[in-house]
Amino acid sequence: MTRKLYDLAAADGTRFSPFCWRAKLALAHKGLDYETIPWRFTDKAAIAASGQDKVPVLVDGANIVSDSQMIADYLERSYPNAPSLYGEPPARALCMFVKSWTEGALHPAIAAVVMPDICERLDPRDQPYFRQTREAMFKRSLEEMAAARPEAEKTLRATLKPLQRLLAGQDFIAGEAPNWADHLVFGALQWARLISAKPLFAPDDLVIAWMGRVLAAYGLEGEEARGA
Amino acid sequence: MTRKLYDLAAADGTRFSPFCWRAKLALAHKGLDYETIPWRFTDKAAIAASGQDKVPVLVDGANIVSDSQMIADYLERSYPNAPSLYGEPPARALCMFVKSWTEGALHPAIAAVVMPDICERLDPRDQPYFRQTREAMFKRSLEEMAAARPEAEKTLRATLKPLQRLLAGQDFIAGEAPNWADHLVFGALQWARLISAKPLFAPDDLVIAWMGRVLAAYGLEGEEARGA
Repeated sequence: MTRKLYDLAAADGTRFSPFCWRAKLALAHKGLDYETIPWRFTDKAAIAASGQDKVPVLVDGANIVSDSQMIADYLERSYPNAPSLYGEPPARALCMFVKSWTEGALHPAIAAVVMPDICERLDPRDQPYFRQTREAMFKRSLEEMAAARPEAEKTLRATLKPLQRLLAGQDFIAGEAPNWADHLVFGALQWARLISAKPLFAPDDLVIAWMGRVLAAYGLEGEEARGA
Repeated sequence: MTRKLYDLAAADGTRFSPFCWRAKLALAHKGLDYETIPWRFTDKAAIAASGQDKVPVLVDGANIVSDSQMIADYLERSYPNAPSLYGEPPARALCMFVKSWTEGALHPAIAAVVMPDICERLDPRDQPYFRQTREAMFKRSLEEMAAARPEAEKTLRATLKPLQRLLAGQDFIAGEAPNWADHLVFGALQWARLISAKPLFAPDDLVIAWMGRVLAAYGLEGEEARGA
């Protein structure tokens, strides 16, 4: 039975969710086959069996797992003979620092830039849900966010400096090969570049070269553009 | 022969350098005895044998090592039977992410708050050197930095959010016990709290509890106040 991953999709099919990207890279890291099922924000019924209403949701035989970190831990536990997503202790704990930074600094910085772009790319039936939940979350209208984009891009560039500094000295966040730490940050930047209406990174940015290395490590070259 | 560490000191003897603190915690982690030699910014001659003009400088028998990361790597290589500062790969590479964040985000955020406070605490003969080099570095006078302190404190609080988020879920950055990743961040926050003219953290802040755990892990309780 093929593994299935419910994967957030824009109206044109672009898979832009940072959390789904991490899960897909974790599956690739483990060398596991899967197929994705495009999912819209309002398709809550399709994933009801997971006991919650967000993607990614992984269906692996009888197991249904949601939340990208739970999926990573599930894969690590269930496929111990495949390459480890973390490495020996204390590597998993250190990955959690990367996760906290990704979710506490990088995601908010990206969100402030691309929220209005996301809304325009969604299936029309998703747009009212998205607008309502995101405007409540950010306490601003999407139009106000769009007007503040230049300032938000400046903050994003500042936020990325520690990552660029790191990548000047090593190929991957985890060193010589990517692991879950790379997946976490890649998910964020893949989300940013797939959904932004304007290019966010210069082609020669260190993070762009690193994203290429991450994809190449899993034989996923060519996923830059569409991300399905 | 006793190991010696040249350690930056304020006029009253307070040891506030983030880079020296990391080196001291690394020595404690390895269980190595050492004595510190208080050093002032203008004591360039005292460390000339290290081939450069900054502390920390470790003198370990015939070996003279400068730069905190070089000291950590030297200790790891020279004392392989003492507890590892990093752990198995990919942990060292992941520590480098913590280092990039510490130096690329946290240090600048702290510096913007405490630069004027540092100057006032230095030995009078160090003050002109400090003022000149730091005003050139930040492209602002110390008085302008002091006036912008409220905004700088706000930025520092935002910068610390990913760390607080992490420490809500685990005892140390490296998980169950501190390693070099903890030393890097501890050095930064110890610098901040020892040198700030006003308290920067609430006593119940998660980072304060974590700093206490780091010191306790090495039997260094009581080092909060003075830091010698």
